[in-house]
Amino acid sequence: MKPEIYKYIFELDFKVRDYECDIQGIVNNAVYQNYLEHTRHEFLHSLNGDFATMHQNGIDPVVIKSELEYKYPLRSGDVFVCRLALQRENYVKFKFIEDVFVKLSDGSEKLCLKGIITCAVTMKGRPVKINVLPEGILKFISTGEDEQQK
Amino acid sequence: MKPEIYKYIFELDFKVRDYECDIQGIVNNAVYQNYLEHTRHEFLHSLNGDFATMHQNGIDPVVIKSELEYKYPLRSGDVFVCRLALQRENYVKFKFIEDVFVKLSDGSEKLCLKGIITCAVTMKGRPVKINVLPEGILKFISTGEDEQQK
Amino acid sequence: MKPEIYKYIFELDFKVRDYECDIQGIVNNAVYQNYLEHTRHEFLHSLNGDFATMHQNGIDPVVIKSELEYKYPLRSGDVFVCRLALQRENYVKFKFIEDVFVKLSDGSEKLCLKGIITCAVTMKGRPVKINVLPEGILKFISTGEDEQQK
Amino acid sequence: MKPEIYKYIFELDFKVRDYECDIQGIVNNAVYQNYLEHTRHEFLHSLNGDFATMHQNGIDPVVIKSELEYKYPLRSGDVFVCRLALQRENYVKFKFIEDVFVKLSDGSEKLCLKGIITCAVTMKGRPVKINVLPEGILKFISTGEDEQQK
Repeated sequence: MKPEIYKYIFELDFKVRDYECDIQGIVNNAVYQNYLEHTRHEFLHSLNGDFATMHQNGIDPVVIKSELEYKYPLRSGDVFVCRLALQRENYVKFKFIEDVFVKLSDGSEKLCLKGIITCAVTMKGRPVKINVLPEGILKFISTGEDEQQK
Repeated sequence: MKPEIYKYIFELDFKVRDYECDIQGIVNNAVYQNYLEHTRHEFLHSLNGDFATMHQNGIDPVVIKSELEYKYPLRSGDVFVCRLALQRENYVKFKFIEDVFVKLSDGSEKLCLKGIITCAVTMKGRPVKINVLPEGILKFISTGEDEQQK
Repeated sequence: MKPEIYKYIFELDFKVRDYECDIQGIVNNAVYQNYLEHTRHEFLHSLNGDFATMHQNGIDPVVIKSELEYKYPLRSGDVFVCRLALQRENYVKFKFIEDVFVKLSDGSEKLCLKGIITCAVTMKGRPVKINVLPEGILKFISTGEDEQQK
Repeated sequence: MKPEIYKYIFELDFKVRDYECDIQGIVNNAVYQNYLEHTRHEFLHSLNGDFATMHQNGIDPVVIKSELEYKYPLRSGDVFVCRLALQRENYVKFKFIEDVFVKLSDGSEKLCLKGIITCAVTMKGRPVKINVLPEGILKFISTGEDEQQK
């Protein structure tokens, strides 16, 4: 997970729920995957027509790899935001970059988690090139060469 | 939840997993419902043919009420058993009685949770009398009048 | 769970997350307990000083029973609200009444779940009368005789 | 996650629980992290004295990165095993290699998930070299150069 150039295109606000915390009083590692999944799904729903059309055409992104770097633990009551970017990996894979930032009491933010969720694209169950994705999604998939980090 | 006369007909062994415990180091209240559900499903699968036939005939039990009395908390590493009984409530409802006992280090057991899960029976989505259930299940549904408690 | 007279004193908005849904595409029964717990904790935190003082004095409400009646299933993407009332049960117990309503597309609401969470009060781990609770909480605990249902 | 040479030193059997499956009828991605965590904790407890001593000395492994490659989905009712190996990364980090295999009805196994959980070691909260770990754990941490894959 080297530093990469990308631009967030979606974000979702959350608050830690106590049942998400474990014995140590911090959010359990697995729960971050829930946060990332919910953010991805909300992003896809925000595309409206494009997402519906994609499904009707039998096209679905499938998660094939998750990478999560834990930087700073979320705790009971923390308010945080999950920000999302899209990046091309190759002809058949793309990545959701999903970074979690806790909102500190002084108004600043601190990076808690860097997530990279790699997806393949399937059409009627078979892997296909990512360029079958609707334009509404494709336009957000940066090549990693020409974008400024937020 | 007055004392009732019933006989356990199925049991399943478990061990607490750390991610099921909350900040206080005890199993979170909601997780007990997971244990009870898994025990019910394993019980239904143990009936084999009867359960498969029931589904094929469009007959499904639907949970309409859960009642859980918390008696003693399960903790990290605890080994426990969930025991199950069936009881008729009326013409259209029956109950799973599900009691959780922790195994103590001296070999004895202690009651942790008393659960009552009330189900209605549906056939193709409509409520029907419980006597449409296959005989393999019906035979376990006591009337609450003629059984000895284990 | 007979019809009772109570007044909601707190509410919290939610949206169903896909990972909370099970094979049938509806929110799993256990997840409702998570919603109810989060609502209770947010209510207690909304009391600010009273809640902090209570803890400092070693006073804690402990859940001893959960009763959940499932009326109508929440599904992927549903927006819903959990409303909370408090009711005295006897000298040593009180109840959180927690009702979940889904927001329908026509702007109306539909009852999904009726929850009753019964608590005892402990002081330094020992059960005590509920009147040790701070006035900020006690004032919300209706006797069930003199309140109008919302 | 290139092919690497390692030897499993611990394994734990599981059965998928229905509440772990999502709308698609397959185990939710986040749940695999629960399986991996539970396997790690059971492994550490299997070390008995070494693990207890480590804690008493204020030494704790801390997860800093999770990498999960999803190869084949687990489904409702599947029986599976999680196998664990340990590998040195550098002076201050080591990795749990955790691979999940489903048991097929013909008695064979199929790889479902490749997991790599990277840990740092802390002593009283500060990062230290991994050679402070007790010999009972250190002896399992291969250098990745001299071991045969199972």
